Amino acid sequence: MVGGGQLARMTQQAAIALGVDFRVLADSAVDSAALVTANTSVGDYHEFADLAAFAAGCDVVTFDHEHVPLAHVEKLTSSGVLVYPAPHALPYVQDKIRMRERLEELAAPVPAWACVESVEDVERFADAHGWPVIAKAASGGYDGKGVWLLQSPDDARQVLAHRDVRFFVEENVAFTRELAALVARTPSGKSTAWPVVETVQSDGICVEVVAPAPGLDSGKASIARNLALRIADELDVVGLLAVELFETPDGVVVNELAMRPHNSGHWTIDGATTSQFEQHLRAVLDWPLGDTAATAPVSVMANILGGDDGNAGLARRVPDVLDDPDLHVHLYGKGVRPGRKIGHVTICGDDVASLRARAGRAADPLRRGAPA
Amino acid sequence: MVGGGQLARMTQQAAIALGVDFRVLADSAVDSAALVTANTSVGDYHEFADLAAFAAGCDVVTFDHEHVPLAHVEKLTSSGVLVYPAPHALPYVQDKIRMRERLEELAAPVPAWACVESVEDVERFADAHGWPVIAKAASGGYDGKGVWLLQSPDDARQVLAHRDVRFFVEENVAFTRELAALVARTPSGKSTAWPVVETVQSDGICVEVVAPAPGLDSGKASIARNLALRIADELDVVGLLAVELFETPDGVVVNELAMRPHNSGHWTIDGATTSQFEQHLRAVLDWPLGDTAATAPVSVMANILGGDDGNAGLARRVPDVLDDPDLHVHLYGKGVRPGRKIGHVTICGDDVASLRARAGRAADPLRRGAPA
Repeated sequence: MVGGGQLARMTQQAAIALGVDFRVLADSAVDSAALVTANTSVGDYHEFADLAAFAAGCDVVTFDHEHVPLAHVEKLTSSGVLVYPAPHALPYVQDKIRMRERLEELAAPVPAWACVESVEDVERFADAHGWPVIAKAASGGYDGKGVWLLQSPDDARQVLAHRDVRFFVEENVAFTRELAALVARTPSGKSTAWPVVETVQSDGICVEVVAPAPGLDSGKASIARNLALRIADELDVVGLLAVELFETPDGVVVNELAMRPHNSGHWTIDGATTSQFEQHLRAVLDWPLGDTAATAPVSVMANILGGDDGNAGLARRVPDVLDDPDLHVHLYGKGVRPGRKIGHVTICGDDVASLRARAGRAADPLRRGAPA
Repeated sequence: MVGGGQLARMTQQAAIALGVDFRVLADSAVDSAALVTANTSVGDYHEFADLAAFAAGCDVVTFDHEHVPLAHVEKLTSSGVLVYPAPHALPYVQDKIRMRERLEELAAPVPAWACVESVEDVERFADAHGWPVIAKAASGGYDGKGVWLLQSPDDARQVLAHRDVRFFVEENVAFTRELAALVARTPSGKSTAWPVVETVQSDGICVEVVAPAPGLDSGKASIARNLALRIADELDVVGLLAVELFETPDGVVVNELAMRPHNSGHWTIDGATTSQFEQHLRAVLDWPLGDTAATAPVSVMANILGGDDGNAGLARRVPDVLDDPDLHVHLYGKGVRPGRKIGHVTICGDDVASLRARAGRAADPLRRGAPA
């Protein structure tokens, strides 16, 4: 797996169970996954030589992020390395403009959007769809980075002042809540879907996931799941595909795609028969996929964001968090910085409201850096 | 954790989630746990210098086996290293004669037993308790090694010919089945118990565990659980204590003790809120213990024993085993030798008979080395 973040770290847990000889290409020896993986190479994924050296001896290469240059991935593939997702699928997550063009071709529901190069372009779009509009960078964004809410031409002027960035704008969808549909697909085209979940964002960062999405109309759930399965097929995704969705009164609209384990699927470690991390390994290895049923009526995942008292503060508070005996705690071993994702908790049970309260209570002192 | 076997390997999975900086002292860099743990030291636990070097910088030292010389553990402790289980608890699992003496003092139910040095000693015991009798080595045994069924004075003569071994004999208990009670205890004396399970042995090796023990009388279950909790208290165990039991028409009798994660608790990874491996870490770190409830009505664990076609044969058959989408597969990365424990599968559900059949079907081709 190229990338040494928490997604690789949690994939390592699944690899241990499956007996997979798991290797990580990390930026540094203290990356989240590097800390817990014996077979770590430190290197720069921007450098083809580092990627090629890492790939030598791997049965299959996959990713914990979308940022490996496509030309390198193509070169690896043409030199005989098996890479999933493949270079013909990757562009749709590396370039959000290509993603939207392709989704439109597939007649998938997407917000109105347009490429923009000038303030006038933005104003023309706003004339048709109203202010505010959402501006996005075509590539490189994550966790709310590369996304701007534009209230006026002045806002547009400020954002477009960023050089060397390709921008597009989107209508500001009047959604009732956000959902995510997560599926896995093998090279031979077999696929599975987990229950559709509700995701809660704060400042562009996912802070909570409830699985399955409470009170979701079964028709909408089925539309969302089938949409994700169809996109995975049409884009020939191998491994995981996460489809972030807006729920609207009329249906669902695609927000973003990711082709890797995804924050909206962390609950599956503790709340589903097969976790997204294990399923990703099974898929890229072309092994049979595991069952995706939830093992409890409700699972709630809350992200732990870094507080302002660093790793020492986190270490001090861990025992207090563990004091709720039903909580599953996952810490990523990352340097604690305010607002950074440093872990998550999951709790499974029956009652959405009380589970949300307990997950939030556990994540909160860690998130806020407040005394426990 | 001293010892690099599968118990350390599965503890590493739990350590990753808890954000614990987990270190292993392994015999070799290709030990089961060494393969998956970045922070592995290779050394010899028989050498105090290796143990001391390993312990430097650890908050707490624990074990994946009972074989570290007690004098070394005492010396580590007196040099200020926190070691759990502590040197005053360890002798009861390192020396089965001391274990039986202590259990008798505690009025715990144990089979009739006696130390023996001669064939005449064995005959005297058999006169009182009947043939056959069980002979055991006081130390060093595991997985049926160090245990003999003696049918006659001739058998006794053969076994007692082993030099430098302290022997004792036990009555051959007429049990209806074998059970195990698993508990965890913290330094401050808090403890938790998982449901009592049924274990099935073949040639002295655990091959199957059913959790909870099917049809176990609730009175007997409570007696077994409370017995394990009381032994943990009386022996001041910190970490896990597994109590292997014989079920008889009248009640339960203690067979053996182990103070570490135990084969009878592997099902807890997939079938309980908190796994034995996570609980062991919480206990030795004096953190709050997790909930031990089963998350499904029944979990069945089947051990995978090595076949006769080595690791290549195992690798070939893994996809076939994964073909049952509800199975949780755990492979240990060990060199495959006939009869060696190389992994296990767990399946959770409702119906004992069908789960046993499915777990057995999955483990069997791997176990037998037969074509899948």
